[in-house]
Amino acid sequence: MLLVYTWLKIFIPITILSLAVLVPVNWTNSTLDNSRNIQFSDIDDLSISNIPKGSQRFWAHLGMSYVFTFWTCYILLKEYGIVASMRLHFLASAKRRPDQFTVLVRNVPPDPDETVSELIEHFFLVHHPDHYLMHQVVYDAKKLGKLVQERKQMKNWLDYYELKYERNSSERPTCKQTGFWGLHGKKVDAIDFYTSKIDKLSKDEARERENITTNPKYIMPAAFVSFRTRWGAAVCAQTQQTRNPTSWLTEWAPEPRDVYWENLAIPFVSLTIRQLIMTVALFFLTFFYIVPISLVQYLANIEGLEKAAPFLKPLTEIHVVKSFIQGFLPGIVLKIFLIFLPTILMIMSKFEGFISLSALQRRSASKYYIFILVNVFLASIITGTAFEQLDSFIHQSANEIPKTIGVSIPMKATFFITYIMVDGWAGIAGEILRLIPLITYHLKNSFLVKTEKDREEAMDPGSIQFGASEPRIQLYFLLGLVYAAITPILLPFILIFFGLAYVVFRHQIINVYNQEYESAAAFWPDVHRRIITALVISQMLLIGLLSTNEAADSTPVLIPLPVLTIWFHRFCKNRYKSAFSKYPLQEAHIKDTLERAREPNLDLRAYLLNAYVHPVFKDEENNNRVSSDEEKELENALVPTKRQSCKNTPVSSKHGCSPSPLLPS
Amino acid sequence: MLLVYTWLKIFIPITILSLAVLVPVNWTNSTLDNSRNIQFSDIDDLSISNIPKGSQRFWAHLGMSYVFTFWTCYILLKEYGIVASMRLHFLASAKRRPDQFTVLVRNVPPDPDETVSELIEHFFLVHHPDHYLMHQVVYDAKKLGKLVQERKQMKNWLDYYELKYERNSSERPTCKQTGFWGLHGKKVDAIDFYTSKIDKLSKDEARERENITTNPKYIMPAAFVSFRTRWGAAVCAQTQQTRNPTSWLTEWAPEPRDVYWENLAIPFVSLTIRQLIMTVALFFLTFFYIVPISLVQYLANIEGLEKAAPFLKPLTEIHVVKSFIQGFLPGIVLKIFLIFLPTILMIMSKFEGFISLSALQRRSASKYYIFILVNVFLASIITGTAFEQLDSFIHQSANEIPKTIGVSIPMKATFFITYIMVDGWAGIAGEILRLIPLITYHLKNSFLVKTEKDREEAMDPGSIQFGASEPRIQLYFLLGLVYAAITPILLPFILIFFGLAYVVFRHQIINVYNQEYESAAAFWPDVHRRIITALVISQMLLIGLLSTNEAADSTPVLIPLPVLTIWFHRFCKNRYKSAFSKYPLQEAHIKDTLERAREPNLDLRAYLLNAYVHPVFKDEENNNRVSSDEEKELENALVPTKRQSCKNTPVSSKHGCSPSPLLPS
Repeated sequence: MLLVYTWLKIFIPITILSLAVLVPVNWTNSTLDNSRNIQFSDIDDLSISNIPKGSQRFWAHLGMSYVFTFWTCYILLKEYGIVASMRLHFLASAKRRPDQFTVLVRNVPPDPDETVSELIEHFFLVHHPDHYLMHQVVYDAKKLGKLVQERKQMKNWLDYYELKYERNSSERPTCKQTGFWGLHGKKVDAIDFYTSKIDKLSKDEARERENITTNPKYIMPAAFVSFRTRWGAAVCAQTQQTRNPTSWLTEWAPEPRDVYWENLAIPFVSLTIRQLIMTVALFFLTFFYIVPISLVQYLANIEGLEKAAPFLKPLTEIHVVKSFIQGFLPGIVLKIFLIFLPTILMIMSKFEGFISLSALQRRSASKYYIFILVNVFLASIITGTAFEQLDSFIHQSANEIPKTIGVSIPMKATFFITYIMVDGWAGIAGEILRLIPLITYHLKNSFLVKTEKDREEAMDPGSIQFGASEPRIQLYFLLGLVYAAITPILLPFILIFFGLAYVVFRHQIINVYNQEYESAAAFWPDVHRRIITALVISQMLLIGLLSTNEAADSTPVLIPLPVLTIWFHRFCKNRYKSAFSKYPLQEAHIKDTLERAREPNLDLRAYLLNAYVHPVFKDEENNNRVSSDEEKELENALVPTKRQSCKNTPVSSKHGCSPSPLLPS
Repeated sequence: MLLVYTWLKIFIPITILSLAVLVPVNWTNSTLDNSRNIQFSDIDDLSISNIPKGSQRFWAHLGMSYVFTFWTCYILLKEYGIVASMRLHFLASAKRRPDQFTVLVRNVPPDPDETVSELIEHFFLVHHPDHYLMHQVVYDAKKLGKLVQERKQMKNWLDYYELKYERNSSERPTCKQTGFWGLHGKKVDAIDFYTSKIDKLSKDEARERENITTNPKYIMPAAFVSFRTRWGAAVCAQTQQTRNPTSWLTEWAPEPRDVYWENLAIPFVSLTIRQLIMTVALFFLTFFYIVPISLVQYLANIEGLEKAAPFLKPLTEIHVVKSFIQGFLPGIVLKIFLIFLPTILMIMSKFEGFISLSALQRRSASKYYIFILVNVFLASIITGTAFEQLDSFIHQSANEIPKTIGVSIPMKATFFITYIMVDGWAGIAGEILRLIPLITYHLKNSFLVKTEKDREEAMDPGSIQFGASEPRIQLYFLLGLVYAAITPILLPFILIFFGLAYVVFRHQIINVYNQEYESAAAFWPDVHRRIITALVISQMLLIGLLSTNEAADSTPVLIPLPVLTIWFHRFCKNRYKSAFSKYPLQEAHIKDTLERAREPNLDLRAYLLNAYVHPVFKDEENNNRVSSDEEKELENALVPTKRQSCKNTPVSSKHGCSPSPLLPS
């Protein structure tokens, strides 16, 4: 949202300037007219290729490159400041939230004499005597979660059969007792069967629940520790507790609904090893993903299939089947892989051990961006697989690489215009039409939906996936910056894309999607870093391109540009980054004082009691109470939404006039 | 000290193993015997060059490379742990130090209504109400410092003339009133002259002193804030105070004698710009230092001199002068530059704005290491200036660079053996003889020393310069690692160097040098990083060398090695680095509790009152009191030292049996 808005702010002046200055400069040459017989198209008349080698006109491109960089950096600096202050304002805004008082403690060392809970209590009573309030240990509730899930399913079936019985009470419904999807087995009375099953599961569940609370084996060495004041929590989250920096690790607790419970108990050494493994895996995924795909594609062609499964031979001899396999299957295999790629990356990020959904999303986005950069941007410019490129880059000298890429950039302009229209514009149109969710909904409705609750679930629009959509939009930003100085005619297409994206995502976020969590713009430093990366790439490529065009006297003038850009990034990081990882003591203190004055009798313990309980321990009623609580607050929201689902209604930020301006993308 | 000890621990097993395994493997080939007519020496018989191309024997070198890496990493891991725990133990040891209670606050924002001092007091009284004790603002005392210095000089002259008068009271001594070094001007009575001068200076000083304390213009926006408890100081140093992360910056106060006062008031934006400028300057210094040197060398030869200064012509026609200029001057110009290099780097670091002497030393050491790496190591292997290398590296492909360097490495073994003997062994011998300080002392004694105080000052051995000596020793470590798998015969030479260095520096540090400050091993992470750099360089070069020797099937086995080494570095950094930048709350709390129990009536305010006063404000007597205070504690030191100067006697660390084990190098 804010992202696309920033991009628009950056790109509108760049587009105007680039069209006004560079198009005439390029157009009034006639280099390409003389060599028209080669593969140049009309668009190239307006691009840098139309300028003769060694011309003094390259100074215009060079100057514009400086102008674009400074403009982008200026907007970025301003936006970083705005986002940081909005984030602090949001955190400081009057609403009380459990995560303001709570710190997540991990890697609590084992103690032979005390339980984890006692140990944590004693530790914080000693070292934060004036501020410690209470704590909530983390239970290993995987098994319980499964049981609860199963019981819910059974309850759903029971509801279905009871409904059936109500409608037609002449005959008690029956079902098949066991086995594969209830397709075979002995016929039994369905209502009795499911009632008894639910009874059994309830008993199991109760036993497991008791087990968890009594058996210390189920207690993980992590806890949510709450403090009397925000000041106390801010101090504890930002300091090191003990001599060993790998035990008693404290950090801000994520929002309760943002916690990824499974990763809370990973020990420190294991974390670093997991990160190493995933870095290597990402490298292989990016550069060698084509290997398994080719393997599957090979298996998926006729000969491969016939070899692997000879019994299919009669089938594959049929003409239609044969042409389908030969024509579509290889493409579909690749498409399926690309559709599942964000999920694969998310699984990789989960394996790395991040503890909040927002961090997982951010990490997946970084991985996805690298993949897109290598396999879409580079692979389109220099044809060949990523692996082949890697090989050729290793064998090229450091100053050859930007040249190789730079030279082919102007020639690919037409391709990228098509790409923007097919992938970008169509993608946005698809987003507003939501065709796939519509189809999925109707499929689900016909085959799976049995009760009202099922229908509600099938209609759930889900939440926007930052990890999958932001890197894709970043690609267009990169294209815009790279072509701004080279083929300015590409810019209006990107501008239209951003305009559409702004309108559509604004609508979707306000009216369609649920908000899974509130990260308070924690993703911004990542976005900023990727924009800087795009800037540096565009500068390097321009240097490469100019140096092949015998503009030898002007090219060295460009070299300070990447140095300054990287320095600018460091400056911004020092200046603003801490707003995204730390909570200033002054703010905490002011809020504490205000609250004490306003609500002197506030029972904070009661407020925090159930905030960080594992979701399976929360009762249904409890859940409803919270959501109706939030419903009440929604009345203050500035923009009335058209949504009907009352699941996870978002909290408005109350800062700007634009609603939820901090939502991802 | 500890550094050299670590290196010995790493190198003794490597040397033994390398000599036992690789020398026989290399020696039992006869490749070089067949091509004896080329430029190979006897040493090459024992090196990797003696193995025929494509031989299976390369597996031995490969295996040893893994063994060396794992051994080095194992020792490093253990040492990092030991150093970290020694540091924490040192910080936690029973002695009370002012810096444990004190935090340095910088970038205090200006306030129209309050003075800096009031503003600081109010801020901390509000935000750290239970812990704030007092603060000491920082004055801009540059001018006062100059005055004090001048008065001291005058006092010295006065002492000298009074001594002269005492010895020969028949005649009052005279001196020349003004001008260049007192060589011309009117003759006046010396004692009267200097007495009046001192009077004038004293008055100026008193006025300046009053000026500083009353005029708010002299107060810099920085202060040393002291807290009632270590816990309070630890909390304040590790947290962010306000919303703006560039104002009210808090960090641990360095030891009082470690503070670099001039840099305390540099604003944030200026800091980042200074760093950018110095990074660029370092790049040019490293790669283009030869340009100004050549210019001076050109001017310093006969023709240049005659052109630049024609009036010298009769002089340069004399044979002796001519041959001196032609033979020595160019070499001496380079030597003088190299002698002044650490000073130049230190000035650069000071410009970057670090606030403690130890940080300045660490930063200079990093710069010096980069310079040595490029201009000694690389320049010796690939002959040519650094600038020529840079040019050739840019034009080579990424996998060609290790090959180019790797191939020439075995050929340079003889050169480096000579280098180790000439520069390393002789340097150590020079260190123990302290020839230059001896000569300087006698020169000073003959020409400059006038009073007893002057003699004491001339005898001052100075303190060990971490920034100049550590990177030089690191170079030998790099050589050892690089040649361990290639020409093992080089290792005994390096081992002798480290052995000598250990004995000599141990003696020098205990008996000769003064300790300027106590950094409590804060330099260790830097040393660790440089050792890891050396490891990775040695691995890359081995990969390059093996890939040219047609050992194609074995080379890829080496690729995981640098990846694992870099990961190991990250692991160590996460595991131990925080011990060098943070002070755990638990430790602080334990120490506070102990102290409260032992000395319930301690007047902390009186203890801290003058701790962080600018040195020019401290009186002479005050200074003496402190040093006699420390003298008393010295009685507990385990090793009696032979030093006589009572300046800055070090504080023993009381941890191991080795005295001051944490001293640099």
